Amino acid sequence: MESKNLDNLRHSCAHLLAHAVKQLYPGALNAIGPAIENGFYQDFDMGRWNISEVDLPKIEAKMREILPTWQKFSFNEVTLPEAKKLFKDNKYKIEMATEFAKQGKKLQTNDPGGFLDLCKMGHVENPSKELRQFKLLSIAGAYWHGNEKNKMLTRIYGTVFPTKEELDAHLKMLEEAKKRDHRKIGETLELFTISTLIGSGLPIFLPKGETIRSTILKYLTDIKKSNGYQFVWSPHIARSETYHISQHWGKYDAMFAPMKLDKEEYVLKPMNCPHHFQVYLNRPRSYKELPFRIAENGTVYRNEKSGEVSGLVRVKALTIDDTHTFIRYSQTMEEVDKVLKMIIKILKTFGFDNYVARISVGDKNHPEKYLGSPQEWERAENALKRGADNLKIKYEVGEGEAAFYGPKIDIMVNDSLGRSWQLSTVQLDYNQPRNFEMKYVDEGGKEAYPAILHIAMIGSIERFMGILIEHYAGAFPLWLSPVQVAILPISEKFLESAQKVKEELQKSNIRVELNTDNKSLGGKIRQSTLQKIPFMIIIGEKEVASYKVHQVYQGTVRTREGKDLGMMEVNKFINQLKSQIENFS
Amino acid sequence: MESKNLDNLRHSCAHLLAHAVKQLYPGALNAIGPAIENGFYQDFDMGRWNISEVDLPKIEAKMREILPTWQKFSFNEVTLPEAKKLFKDNKYKIEMATEFAKQGKKLQTNDPGGFLDLCKMGHVENPSKELRQFKLLSIAGAYWHGNEKNKMLTRIYGTVFPTKEELDAHLKMLEEAKKRDHRKIGETLELFTISTLIGSGLPIFLPKGETIRSTILKYLTDIKKSNGYQFVWSPHIARSETYHISQHWGKYDAMFAPMKLDKEEYVLKPMNCPHHFQVYLNRPRSYKELPFRIAENGTVYRNEKSGEVSGLVRVKALTIDDTHTFIRYSQTMEEVDKVLKMIIKILKTFGFDNYVARISVGDKNHPEKYLGSPQEWERAENALKRGADNLKIKYEVGEGEAAFYGPKIDIMVNDSLGRSWQLSTVQLDYNQPRNFEMKYVDEGGKEAYPAILHIAMIGSIERFMGILIEHYAGAFPLWLSPVQVAILPISEKFLESAQKVKEELQKSNIRVELNTDNKSLGGKIRQSTLQKIPFMIIIGEKEVASYKVHQVYQGTVRTREGKDLGMMEVNKFINQLKSQIENFS
Repeated sequence: MESKNLDNLRHSCAHLLAHAVKQLYPGALNAIGPAIENGFYQDFDMGRWNISEVDLPKIEAKMREILPTWQKFSFNEVTLPEAKKLFKDNKYKIEMATEFAKQGKKLQTNDPGGFLDLCKMGHVENPSKELRQFKLLSIAGAYWHGNEKNKMLTRIYGTVFPTKEELDAHLKMLEEAKKRDHRKIGETLELFTISTLIGSGLPIFLPKGETIRSTILKYLTDIKKSNGYQFVWSPHIARSETYHISQHWGKYDAMFAPMKLDKEEYVLKPMNCPHHFQVYLNRPRSYKELPFRIAENGTVYRNEKSGEVSGLVRVKALTIDDTHTFIRYSQTMEEVDKVLKMIIKILKTFGFDNYVARISVGDKNHPEKYLGSPQEWERAENALKRGADNLKIKYEVGEGEAAFYGPKIDIMVNDSLGRSWQLSTVQLDYNQPRNFEMKYVDEGGKEAYPAILHIAMIGSIERFMGILIEHYAGAFPLWLSPVQVAILPISEKFLESAQKVKEELQKSNIRVELNTDNKSLGGKIRQSTLQKIPFMIIIGEKEVASYKVHQVYQGTVRTREGKDLGMMEVNKFINQLKSQIENFS
Repeated sequence: MESKNLDNLRHSCAHLLAHAVKQLYPGALNAIGPAIENGFYQDFDMGRWNISEVDLPKIEAKMREILPTWQKFSFNEVTLPEAKKLFKDNKYKIEMATEFAKQGKKLQTNDPGGFLDLCKMGHVENPSKELRQFKLLSIAGAYWHGNEKNKMLTRIYGTVFPTKEELDAHLKMLEEAKKRDHRKIGETLELFTISTLIGSGLPIFLPKGETIRSTILKYLTDIKKSNGYQFVWSPHIARSETYHISQHWGKYDAMFAPMKLDKEEYVLKPMNCPHHFQVYLNRPRSYKELPFRIAENGTVYRNEKSGEVSGLVRVKALTIDDTHTFIRYSQTMEEVDKVLKMIIKILKTFGFDNYVARISVGDKNHPEKYLGSPQEWERAENALKRGADNLKIKYEVGEGEAAFYGPKIDIMVNDSLGRSWQLSTVQLDYNQPRNFEMKYVDEGGKEAYPAILHIAMIGSIERFMGILIEHYAGAFPLWLSPVQVAILPISEKFLESAQKVKEELQKSNIRVELNTDNKSLGGKIRQSTLQKIPFMIIIGEKEVASYKVHQVYQGTVRTREGKDLGMMEVNKFINQLKSQIENFS
C-alpha cells in the first residue's frame, strides 16, 4: 500500500479510537490524533478518569463494537463561530479551530458513526471494512503542544494495517523488538550503564560494551587509514566565537549552554567540523594535497531533552565517526564513489545487506537560493547519483531538500527485523571553506576554495551500537563478542588444565573467560549461553586423558546455539577462531 | 651543594641584581626577589625606564662591577615605622613590611655593598666570592602579587651556581632545552597546533602527532589489558551533584564553570574517578572480584588560566591514563607491587632509566586527622615503601604530606637533559568508597568498604608527549615515529619501483612516505632528516638493476643520523624494522 493511503488508514483509526474512548469515559476530551511511522496515536484529556495499559482491551472492544456503524467520512465545511459552537465542550478543538482559522485554513467536520470531529482531510473510503486490522499498543503521557508548561495529556498508541497478515507480521516484529530491546540486553550483558547521578543521556560503557565499542572503532579506523584518511585528535570544547564563524550559533538548537571562564566563553562542541578545519588551516595547502582526508572518532555534545533521551539510540554524548575530506570540485565524482564503496563495505560487514539511499538536491527553479554555481551543483548531484548507481544502490531524490550549502546522500539500512535506520551520510559543502577562509593554491598558482565532504559512515557509535545490539539480539558475531570463548571445567579437578587452555587462547589474543563458579556443567553452559558467548570449551576427564596421551590440549567445543562440535585440538580450534575473526564474522 | 645553601646563593644574587638595576636606572623600584628552581628572579617597577633582553649584558656588567664591594650581609632588626621611613620611596617594600608586621614577623634590613634592602633571612656568608658564577637569562612581565588587577612589573630571571663548571653545564642544558622546545619542534614536525579560535590550552593533534599519541596509548592499553585491567568509556560531563558527593565542589579550583540545561546543572569532568565509580556500582560486588581494575584514557578539563597554559605541558584538556583499582585492604601490598612494576617497565620503554620516588605519608602524631585506622595507614605506607624497595627505587618520605584520605607515591624521572619531571602517581584512597557507598560482600557475607588505588602511569598524554618531544629532541624511536621510513627515488624514472617498495612496507604496517618532490637526492635526504624520519630507502639505477637480476626489491638504506647501511633486500630490511618495532625501540 502506498504510504499516503497507509497514512489515511492510520489517521482514520485514530478517530475511531477517540470515538470509543469518549463513549467509555464520559467527559474525556480528544485532542490531536495523527498517523505516525508504523501506526497512529490519539491524545486525550481524560478528565476525572485514569487509564492504563490494562484498559486497552476494553477500549479495543468498544472500537470493534462501534466499527460497523462507521460507514463513511462525510465532510462539512464550517465557520469558526460554528466550530466554536459545535465543540464548545472541547477546549482543545476550539484552540485548534482558532489556530487553523488564523492560518486561513478551511475548517471541516466529519461524523462517521455519528461521532462528530473536527479534522483535516485524509481518511479511508469505507472505514467499517478497512479499519478492521487494528491493535492498541501502549499509553504514555504527552504535553499539549509538546510544551512542558502545558497540561500532560494521555496518549494512546495503536497501529492498523490493510490486512491481517500485515498486522500480525508487524505485531510479531514488535514483540521480537521488545525482546531485543538494547536497554534490556545492555543491562543483562553488562554492556553499558546510565547513572542518574552522572546524568540522563550520558551512557557509560562497561568493560564488555567498551570492548565492542573499541573493536568497531578500530575496524573503522583501519579501513579509513588504508584508504588514505589521516586521524587527528581535538578537544571537546571551543571558544563560542568558533560557532559564530561557522554560522551555527543561534540556529543550531542542540548546542549546550556556554561556559564563561577567564573573560572567554567556551561551549561543548556540537560537531567536529571547525576543529578539523584548524588542521587544514595549519599551513597553506596546495592542489597536490587534495583530497585531504581528516578523520576522528570525536565525541560531541547535543542537548537532547532529558525526557527524550533513550538508551544508546538517543543520547547527549555522541561519538561520531567523523570525516572531513577537502577536495577540488573536479574530484567530487571520484571521491564520492570511493566513499560510497567504503560505506557499503562497512555496512555489509555488520550484516546490513539491504540499504537504500535518499539524495537531497537543490530546487532547480531557484538556483539563487544556493551557494555555488548551477553547474557545480549539477556536477555534485550527478556525482551522488552516479555513485549510488555504480553500487546499484536504489535511491529516491528529494527535490529542493538540500541545504543551501550543498547536496547530500543518506544511506538507510534494514536491520534483521526489517526496521529501517538511517546510518551513513555524505554531505557536500561549498559554504564552510568560505566562512573559515580555507583555500588552496591551484595548478595555475591561484587561490581557490575546496569543497568539503562531511562524512559519517556509521553515524554515532552509541546509536550504532544500540542498533547492533537489537540487530544481533545481543548475540554478536565472534569478532565483536566481548567474551569470545568460555572455558568450562566440568569440576574443580580440571581447573589446572582449563587454566592452561585459557592461556593458550590468550596468547592468540582471543578474549576468553574461565568459569570457576561452583556450578554443574549444565549450569555453566546455561550461564555462557545467556551471556551469548559464541563458543564454549568443555574440559573434563576425557579431554585431560587425551592430553596425557597426545601431549596436545584438547577440549569439547560447543556453540551458544547449542551445537556440539565434538572434541578438538585446542590449537586447531584457535586457528579456526583466528580466521573467523580476521574475516569479521 | 645542599638545596638550602643553593637557595641562599640564588636569593643573595637577586639582591645583587636589585642593586645593579637601581644604580643603572634611577627611580626603578625593586619588589620581591626569591630563589626558584634552578635560579632566581627579581621583580621591578621600572618607572620611566623600558628594558629588554638586550640590556641584560649591561646589567650583568654592573653586577660584576659592584660585586667586590659586597663583603657580607649584616642584619638589622627594624620597627615598622622605621622600615616605612627607610623605604619611603618604595611603596612595594612598605606594603611588604606592613604585611610582615601584621603577620607578626620580624622586619630586617641588610646592606651589602651599601645597598639597603628589606628582607627575610637566607643569604651567603661571603657574597663577593660566592656570587661570581651568575648569569641573567630573560625578562618577562609579572603582575604584582600575581593579580592581573595590579600593576605589571618587570621580572628579570637569572641563575647562579657555586662553580663555573656547574654554571656552564646548566647554561648548556638551557641552550639544548631551547633547541628542543616542544612547541617549536611540534610546529616543525607538524605534531600539534593550538588555534586561537578554538582556545588557548586546547591543543589539536595533527595527523603525525595523533599517530604518536595513539601509538603510546595503544602500548599502555595493551600492557594494562594483559595485566587484568578492564577498559571503560565515560562521557566528559556529569551533573554537578557528582562533585558535591565526591566533596570536590568548592574545594577544587580548576573546575570549569557549570552549564545549566533542562533544569539540571552539568560540568566538565575535572577527573575520571566518579564516572569509574559508577562502573563499580553497576551491580553488587563480591570479594572474589577484587582487585577490580578499571582503566580509561579519559579527557578531563581543568581551568588553567589562559596566561599560564603553555604548549602541551600545561593545558586545559588533559587525557589521563587513568586507572581505579578497587582492592581489599589486605591486597594493598601485592597490588602496589604489581602497579609499581608496570610503571617502571613503562618508564623504561621511553628511555627514562633514572627515577626517584616521593612517598607522602600521614602525620604519626595526629592520627585523628586521617580517615582509616593507624594500622591501615601503616600497612598502606609500608606497602608503598616496600614496593619502592623491591624495585630498588630511591625515595624520600614526606611526613604529614599525605591527603586525609590516603598516602601516595609519586615517581619522578630525569629526562635526557637531566631535568626532573613528575610522571606517575599511585594514590591510596579510603574516602571515596564511603562518599559513594561503594562496598563489597566479604568472605563472611558481610559488607565492607574496598580501598581504591588511583593510578596514573604517565599522567596526561598531552604533558607526557610534550616531555617526550624534548626528551627525544623530536627524533622519536622507530616504533613511535609518525613516518618510519621515507622512500627516496633518485629521479622520476624510479618512481614506479619506489611505489612498489612503498607498498611492500605498507603491507607490513610500516608507516612510510614516498618523496615525490622535484628535488635532488641530497635535497630529499635533507628533508627526511629535518623531519627526523628514522630510515630512508634510496631507489636509483643500481637498485633497479639489481631487481632485474634477482627479482627481489633492493634499496640503499640510510639513517637520520647520516649512517649509510648499504644496499639491502627490502624484505630483509622490513623484518629488521618489524623486530625493532616489536621491541619498542
